[in-house]
Amino acid sequence: MAVENLDDAVGTYERLFGGTVERRGTLEDQGVEAVSLRLGDGRVELMSALGADTLLGKFLAKRGPGMHHVAYEVADLPGALRQLADDGAELIDAEPRTGLFGLQVAFVHPDSAHGVLSELVSE
Amino acid sequence: MAVENLDDAVGTYERLFGGTVERRGTLEDQGVEAVSLRLGDGRVELMSALGADTLLGKFLAKRGPGMHHVAYEVADLPGALRQLADDGAELIDAEPRTGLFGLQVAFVHPDSAHGVLSELVSE
Repeated sequence: MAVENLDDAVGTYERLFGGTVERRGTLEDQGVEAVSLRLGDGRVELMSALGADTLLGKFLAKRGPGMHHVAYEVADLPGALRQLADDGAELIDAEPRTGLFGLQVAFVHPDSAHGVLSELVSE
Repeated sequence: MAVENLDDAVGTYERLFGGTVERRGTLEDQGVEAVSLRLGDGRVELMSALGADTLLGKFLAKRGPGMHHVAYEVADLPGALRQLADDGAELIDAEPRTGLFGLQVAFVHPDSAHGVLSELVSE
C-alpha cells in the first residue's frame, strides 16, 4: 500500500486490522521507506516515498494513497521467473534483484496480469 | 481484482501464479460476477461487471482493470465491526451483509484506511 505518512499508516493497521510490525527498512535507490506487518497468514507492506521526485512520490501525487502492487512468496524465484517467461509473461525483472528487507524480488508487468503490478518474493 | 474478462483472468492466475479455483458466483444486486482462487495461504478474488452501468463497470471504465479492494477474514465479524466503530473507523456497512459466495461481509471506507477500500469477511 502506498501511504503519505508511514507512522500514521502503521498505527492504523495495528489498531484497526490487528497488524504486527515485522520489518522496517528503506530502499534508497527506489526512494522508498517501508514497513511490513503480519496480518493473520499474510502480510501488508506499507510504503512511503523518500521524496516527491521518486517513482512512488509521483504515484502518490497522481493517484493518492492506496493499493500499489501485490506480492506472492515463492520458494524458487529463478525457477518461477523462467516459468513465467516460458508462459509469455512480460517481466520487469528477468533476474531476481535485492528488494526491501534484503529479500530477493522480481516484478511482473501489469500488462501480463490484468492491470495488476505483481511481485514475486523469496527469502 | 477488477477484470474485463473473467475467464481470461482465471486462466492467467491459474497458469502464471498457480491459483486454484475455489468458488464462482454472481451478486446480482451489485452487478458482479466473481471467481475466488486459492494462492498459497491466501486468496485472490477476480471480479467482472455484469453491465457497464454497475459500480464495477464504472470503476473499470474510469480506471481500467486492476486492484479494487483487499479483504481480511475474521472469526467474529459483528465483534470486529463494533471494535472498528469504537476506534472511529468509517464503516460502509455498520452490520454484516451477505456478499459473494454467501459469505458475511462488511466494508470499511477507504478514508479510514489510507485510501484502501477494505473488507472484513466471515464464513
